[in-house]
Amino acid sequence: MAELRVAMIGHAFMGGTHSVAWRTVNAAFDLPLTARMSVLCGRDAAKAAAAAEKLGWAEHATDWRDVVTRDDVDLVDICTPGDSHAEIALAALAAGKHVLCEKPLANSVAEARAMTSAAEAARANGVRSMCGFNYRRTPAVALMRQLVADGRIGEIRHVRARYLQDWIVDPQFPLVWRLQRDKAGSGALGDIGAHIIDLTQFVTGQQITGVSALTETFVRQRPLVGASAGLAASSGAGTGEVTVDDAALFLARLDGGAIGTYEATRFATGRKNALQVEINGSRGSVAFDFERMNELQFHDATVPAAEGGFTTILVTEPEHPYLAGWWPPGHPIGYEHTFTHEARDLMLAVAAGEDPTPSFADALQVQLVLDAVERSAANAAGWTKVEPA
Amino acid sequence: MAELRVAMIGHAFMGGTHSVAWRTVNAAFDLPLTARMSVLCGRDAAKAAAAAEKLGWAEHATDWRDVVTRDDVDLVDICTPGDSHAEIALAALAAGKHVLCEKPLANSVAEARAMTSAAEAARANGVRSMCGFNYRRTPAVALMRQLVADGRIGEIRHVRARYLQDWIVDPQFPLVWRLQRDKAGSGALGDIGAHIIDLTQFVTGQQITGVSALTETFVRQRPLVGASAGLAASSGAGTGEVTVDDAALFLARLDGGAIGTYEATRFATGRKNALQVEINGSRGSVAFDFERMNELQFHDATVPAAEGGFTTILVTEPEHPYLAGWWPPGHPIGYEHTFTHEARDLMLAVAAGEDPTPSFADALQVQLVLDAVERSAANAAGWTKVEPA
Amino acid sequence: MAELRVAMIGHAFMGGTHSVAWRTVNAAFDLPLTARMSVLCGRDAAKAAAAAEKLGWAEHATDWRDVVTRDDVDLVDICTPGDSHAEIALAALAAGKHVLCEKPLANSVAEARAMTSAAEAARANGVRSMCGFNYRRTPAVALMRQLVADGRIGEIRHVRARYLQDWIVDPQFPLVWRLQRDKAGSGALGDIGAHIIDLTQFVTGQQITGVSALTETFVRQRPLVGASAGLAASSGAGTGEVTVDDAALFLARLDGGAIGTYEATRFATGRKNALQVEINGSRGSVAFDFERMNELQFHDATVPAAEGGFTTILVTEPEHPYLAGWWPPGHPIGYEHTFTHEARDLMLAVAAGEDPTPSFADALQVQLVLDAVERSAANAAGWTKVEPA
Amino acid sequence: MAELRVAMIGHAFMGGTHSVAWRTVNAAFDLPLTARMSVLCGRDAAKAAAAAEKLGWAEHATDWRDVVTRDDVDLVDICTPGDSHAEIALAALAAGKHVLCEKPLANSVAEARAMTSAAEAARANGVRSMCGFNYRRTPAVALMRQLVADGRIGEIRHVRARYLQDWIVDPQFPLVWRLQRDKAGSGALGDIGAHIIDLTQFVTGQQITGVSALTETFVRQRPLVGASAGLAASSGAGTGEVTVDDAALFLARLDGGAIGTYEATRFATGRKNALQVEINGSRGSVAFDFERMNELQFHDATVPAAEGGFTTILVTEPEHPYLAGWWPPGHPIGYEHTFTHEARDLMLAVAAGEDPTPSFADALQVQLVLDAVERSAANAAGWTKVEPA
Repeated sequence: MAELRVAMIGHAFMGGTHSVAWRTVNAAFDLPLTARMSVLCGRDAAKAAAAAEKLGWAEHATDWRDVVTRDDVDLVDICTPGDSHAEIALAALAAGKHVLCEKPLANSVAEARAMTSAAEAARANGVRSMCGFNYRRTPAVALMRQLVADGRIGEIRHVRARYLQDWIVDPQFPLVWRLQRDKAGSGALGDIGAHIIDLTQFVTGQQITGVSALTETFVRQRPLVGASAGLAASSGAGTGEVTVDDAALFLARLDGGAIGTYEATRFATGRKNALQVEINGSRGSVAFDFERMNELQFHDATVPAAEGGFTTILVTEPEHPYLAGWWPPGHPIGYEHTFTHEARDLMLAVAAGEDPTPSFADALQVQLVLDAVERSAANAAGWTKVEPA
Repeated sequence: MAELRVAMIGHAFMGGTHSVAWRTVNAAFDLPLTARMSVLCGRDAAKAAAAAEKLGWAEHATDWRDVVTRDDVDLVDICTPGDSHAEIALAALAAGKHVLCEKPLANSVAEARAMTSAAEAARANGVRSMCGFNYRRTPAVALMRQLVADGRIGEIRHVRARYLQDWIVDPQFPLVWRLQRDKAGSGALGDIGAHIIDLTQFVTGQQITGVSALTETFVRQRPLVGASAGLAASSGAGTGEVTVDDAALFLARLDGGAIGTYEATRFATGRKNALQVEINGSRGSVAFDFERMNELQFHDATVPAAEGGFTTILVTEPEHPYLAGWWPPGHPIGYEHTFTHEARDLMLAVAAGEDPTPSFADALQVQLVLDAVERSAANAAGWTKVEPA
Repeated sequence: MAELRVAMIGHAFMGGTHSVAWRTVNAAFDLPLTARMSVLCGRDAAKAAAAAEKLGWAEHATDWRDVVTRDDVDLVDICTPGDSHAEIALAALAAGKHVLCEKPLANSVAEARAMTSAAEAARANGVRSMCGFNYRRTPAVALMRQLVADGRIGEIRHVRARYLQDWIVDPQFPLVWRLQRDKAGSGALGDIGAHIIDLTQFVTGQQITGVSALTETFVRQRPLVGASAGLAASSGAGTGEVTVDDAALFLARLDGGAIGTYEATRFATGRKNALQVEINGSRGSVAFDFERMNELQFHDATVPAAEGGFTTILVTEPEHPYLAGWWPPGHPIGYEHTFTHEARDLMLAVAAGEDPTPSFADALQVQLVLDAVERSAANAAGWTKVEPA
Repeated sequence: MAELRVAMIGHAFMGGTHSVAWRTVNAAFDLPLTARMSVLCGRDAAKAAAAAEKLGWAEHATDWRDVVTRDDVDLVDICTPGDSHAEIALAALAAGKHVLCEKPLANSVAEARAMTSAAEAARANGVRSMCGFNYRRTPAVALMRQLVADGRIGEIRHVRARYLQDWIVDPQFPLVWRLQRDKAGSGALGDIGAHIIDLTQFVTGQQITGVSALTETFVRQRPLVGASAGLAASSGAGTGEVTVDDAALFLARLDGGAIGTYEATRFATGRKNALQVEINGSRGSVAFDFERMNELQFHDATVPAAEGGFTTILVTEPEHPYLAGWWPPGHPIGYEHTFTHEARDLMLAVAAGEDPTPSFADALQVQLVLDAVERSAANAAGWTKVEPA
């Protein structure tokens, strides 16, 4: 069977999840291509070598510029922090490689626009590009999308989206790169707010047209970093300034008539990865919390009132999106397979010569919403239109 | 409007809940009779007087023998411990009074049989009698019954019933009357096990025909009682023997083909009043926990698998049993109104000249199940048939 | 024992709940006063007479002006729609009567200011006044307040408040008075939004200082009313314009440094009376949903991570606020007793010669927040300060 | 690094999950050995070849007798139906191979005894053997074990265990091998009942000493199988007799003084894979449902009553058992990793020269409980002692 030879740039948290995806996707799904984990690229040779061995990559490399032009690479999978996405993606697209780029697409609208243009140009040559908003591929989220698309929710009135974490509640948690504007672009807003923007637009089929926003940085000075691993880190000596938001809140209008409340925060004590979405429409409602990612709450308002209520759908039936590849009903799957499903859909698109979603253009639009949020927050929460792509 | 003049014997825990019922029933429901709280009877005159004033009874009395023959009393409401039920009920029935008797009907099968015979004799004279298995009148339980009766659960396969409390986990909790066989008849078995026997038979429309049982007393010596109030009590000097079961477990077969597991215990740490019932049938399932008494879990197996699951029905719609008398949807009601509903149904029966349920005969049958459980437990869990009434 | 002779003006939904309160409060709690349900007042004599009998009032009357000056009335309980609150309260205070006024205090800030001034003047003469934000007296809400006050939540970062209902999702639901600005003042905002403003300010001990808001009316024309009862109603002929908001969303800053999202809507399909509040602080979090009013979710961040999580506290222990008056642990209470607790606290204050809370001044401040929300919504969600009282 | 070369016999449902384990274990955990997926063995060469490629095995084979004696195999992983376990395991042990045998260890006590003896003999030569009760390695289950072992639950009073599935509720579901006694040994009892026996004994550290049991076959004739895959299957022509139990219920006593109710059924409509366990002790309780496998309910009875309740621990913290290998807090893992953890622990034991658990002797003891259950059910639920191993 034809192979899809993958080069992965970066091997921290996202490198780990993407490695699961490539390692697993052909065992779980019958696909027209076989993923080959060709090369892992990281700046430190020793660390890259260790990561490649542990995560199952055939080779390692240290210079991404070499890697993205190698003849034996079909797809470049970008798992680095956001400040290097544009440069790597542009080079890979220029070299005719398919690109999977982690979200956020870029740290600025300008970069995202450049990447989108490059992706559209490359598309003419059959080069595919995709941005990794993995939560779309949670089966329960895909089921929400399906229910909305099938008209089961009716006309959507309300979107209620929160992404709640608590990993920096402690003021002694150190100043990791995610808390620095030059590396991360923004704080909770871009890191996790971007996910709920993408996810709710995906599920509703509507786009945010304007926002009113407020951001806050609760802890403005933090210890400098000693050592870090994944999202965990220890403190070193000295302190530095937090230059991103700890929390971002906004109200929104969507182009199909819905109104929404959005909240992204790293200060929701006790909430670990609570990506919570509720959508209310004229015919029904859906509600979801990623901490119970295998469940969807569905209310069908056409059922007689005496039997109505929210049904807890255990999203583990073979009829459910992506579940045919997994276990019998009632056997949960884990977070990492949102990435496995991403890899699956990308491989299907590549094989079919079709464009996968979300495209870079889709990701640019999310970036434009983030931009409107920041502008509104800087302007006393005044209503701010999302700029056209 | 015609009155139903009530005399209540006993004014401890059950006296309080029954007083709410009589005080509330006409405000909540449109009924053909008006309840009049005529006289409260207790052994201690001062306590009875205070209780009558606080609970809203017009008079108090100390001798139940006088009370049950008064001309200005239509109904005798027996809220005393089980060891006096038979004597009072027999006298009241003999005096031609309607009788509402708290469960368990009696402390022995012999007494229960005598009471049932008396009730059936009195019935010929238009005298009504009812045993107070109040949990039947929880709206969610009545809704379960209705779903079963409407065929929505199909052929019932499994009954899973537990009544879990934890108020005597502490070995220093004193030897209250409920822990003494001569006063209470049995322990968890008769006190709370009786409720799940009645409730599951009511909901399924099936009767238990045989059991295999095991009982246990975890703490065999306890301090003697200092003072008690409701279910709370403090310790005095000295210790005494616990002569009832702390927990009773049994397997059962029901006459419609279902099989069941039953468990009643006062040692389920953290479970306060968890009367939990689940019923699985060929077309669906229902599940209930009294700690969330306003909710019913309903699974309709005829719904397509991809949308299936347990629906949390908030049992507060006007279409739900008893709810027309209460608040708008989403506004919970409390425990005490299981008694208000009991009073309502009893008053409707009295006014219509019909027999309310559960009858004394129904309560005798529960007693016979309790008896079979005790005999099985005494006989190495050997299969034991429930005797015919 | 001394009596508190009550006159209740209005006998619709709130009249029913307040009647429960006055009827029940002395049976549930040991109090220095006895409530006497003296007179119920309604415009239609026949309806008032029927209501008085059903709800347990000694007399009925039709002219509130007479009632509020009667010598045998100590307290006037105002349960009419908001447009008559000011006139009745001013007259009652002028007559030297204690006043309990349902929320919202008034339909306009000007009226609320006048009422507050009158209440403060009357206070000099020992006249007490209270506004009926009943949800404060939910035991779980009072427990939240206590945890915050005890420092268990730490520095509060986030308030997340929603009041979700769905009773007008159907566009054929008729144009009841609650959908008309001249009678109701505003829509979801004043009716249910006011509750979450009061409740979150009560629980956090912080006041909202500024807002950014958006309101929406999804269904702008509705059938005229045929007949109505409680929140239910049927349609008549013709249609009319909905002149209030169906939903109101706002972001807020509180004076203690917290930021908040607020949402009040009657279009949250499947949510019946979901008053949901979550508060995150530096030491812990609490979360509450009125549909499970006997439960509080509490996360204590000082517990080791491996044992941490949200604890479902069943708020039915005798140690819990108001619970000493009720049933043993695990036996839920209902919505109506938020009013019973209100009556209790008011009676204690009257007897002690102290001012009950929330005062009219507290209610005026809520009104000022509502006013800021409406001004922000009218001004493109621009940041709007809450005016000082 | 040293390799552990694995041969897997059988490649149906369990073959799939075990393949994930071997493929993943070194990427997730730092281990002293590297698993090598050497050879997959299946009777049909074409199917075995396809499975080997899809699941990631280097080679395939068709004759297990050859495979278990190959020099380049260190461990034989037995994933076939129970009727061939004994033969394969005995051969593998005789060949000096480590053995991982799926549960149930065997279809009869006699076979299980023979396997246990062989394992103990092989142990003298450094050969390790383990039975695959994978649910023990669910992190939340391991956490339960830890809490019990740390004394946090106190003296255990109650064990409440259910394993509820519903995949054969439809009487038209065909007569797959799991419904035939000669192939499967027993029905729900051995298939899923064995899991809750092992799991509760593991968590409590107590062994079941006697039982009283009842089994039932609700549907006695089923269509013959057309085609099957995993747990799914379609019907062919003709019918045959179901020769195993559909449901098994039993009461038990454990050697530490606890009493228990156990239920295993395939007729719990709406319950897909609900392995539910609750344990109540003198100091606390734990409750678990595999359908929410990343959560544990823990009640600490030493907490003051007003703050007490069941805490939902999201078992995704790095401090939790096995979680250091996975994702940040709040990111669930899936069913398959119960097997990954099994492989991890087995590899650690092999490398350390220690015996992994559960041993064949442990599995034999489970078999003896199953045997006692069947004997009791055949003897009118009479109390039946579990035979000594």
